[in-house]
Amino acid sequence: MNQVKIAVIVGSLRYASLNRKLAHNLEKVAPAHFILNQLIIGDLPLYNQDDDEEPCKEVIRLKSEIHAADGLIFITPEYNRSIPGVLKNAIDHASRPYGKSVWRKKPAGILGVSVGMTGTALAQQHLRNILAYLDVPVLGQPEVFVQDKKDLFDGEGNLGELHLPLIQNWMDCFAGWVKTQTAESTQIS
Amino acid sequence: MNQVKIAVIVGSLRYASLNRKLAHNLEKVAPAHFILNQLIIGDLPLYNQDDDEEPCKEVIRLKSEIHAADGLIFITPEYNRSIPGVLKNAIDHASRPYGKSVWRKKPAGILGVSVGMTGTALAQQHLRNILAYLDVPVLGQPEVFVQDKKDLFDGEGNLGELHLPLIQNWMDCFAGWVKTQTAESTQIS
Repeated sequence: MNQVKIAVIVGSLRYASLNRKLAHNLEKVAPAHFILNQLIIGDLPLYNQDDDEEPCKEVIRLKSEIHAADGLIFITPEYNRSIPGVLKNAIDHASRPYGKSVWRKKPAGILGVSVGMTGTALAQQHLRNILAYLDVPVLGQPEVFVQDKKDLFDGEGNLGELHLPLIQNWMDCFAGWVKTQTAESTQIS
Repeated sequence: MNQVKIAVIVGSLRYASLNRKLAHNLEKVAPAHFILNQLIIGDLPLYNQDDDEEPCKEVIRLKSEIHAADGLIFITPEYNRSIPGVLKNAIDHASRPYGKSVWRKKPAGILGVSVGMTGTALAQQHLRNILAYLDVPVLGQPEVFVQDKKDLFDGEGNLGELHLPLIQNWMDCFAGWVKTQTAESTQIS
């Protein structure tokens, strides 16, 4: 089976990020032909339109990694009822300059963990608004809103038995979504 | 009359920013006792929760300027149907660490200019969602959604005759809003 390259974008920079732990767990449940590549977004400058003509190497790297991907997974915390500025900054960079966005038509999925009981639900809605504009088709169901409770991860960062089947099911649906979207774009083009 | 200190936060970093031009025009229509201070957000690092205990000097500066302000004006472009990552990053910094946000109860107003015909309307809605969570009371009406058309600004960056009365009216309403909110918080406390 052909390899499917998935760019994974984690919205938090902190070392012990719950969302990064979730990203690592996704690797265990992904199909064998899926290659998950976690992108680095913490070394990007703050987006400034004046740099559009001469982007720095970090922006060029980000855009080429997204360009090369067959699909996208966003795993994000919720900051102040929206996505982190860190994540939006990466999205803005890769969407510019006008007409040169690399996001378009890459099938995507969204997940998130937070300490709050809404489990990043509102951040995910803002992200869906943004991705709709960028013409990124996003998996609708199942939604994954995870609250960090005792024993969500064990000491090695492994998801507990309660959540692993949920993430396995999500990944199976996401894999099907990527396949459908890829087939559709092949038929159209 | 006592001075009223307003922190002005512009969501774009580019040199010829339309929103920064609008910010400069606001100074012309503000009451004499209003002191408008444009905050610098372009030198902030990307927010990382690991730095909460030892914030850098740029973050300390931002938080102390907001803390000292009697009110806030956000002037923002719309990037991908939301606020710029640059602006969200500044908001995230000044909201942290948990329990130490400096945004709470500062009366605010929002304006925006964009080249698109919705004039930043969707970015402003996302910003309202975020500010509601941060307990920032935001002026409801009049809304200011400005589309950049021919002659919006003259060669020196002055607003044309069509828009200046609109901005004057907005500022009058905003000044009343700040006064009401300040009086309310004095009564409550």
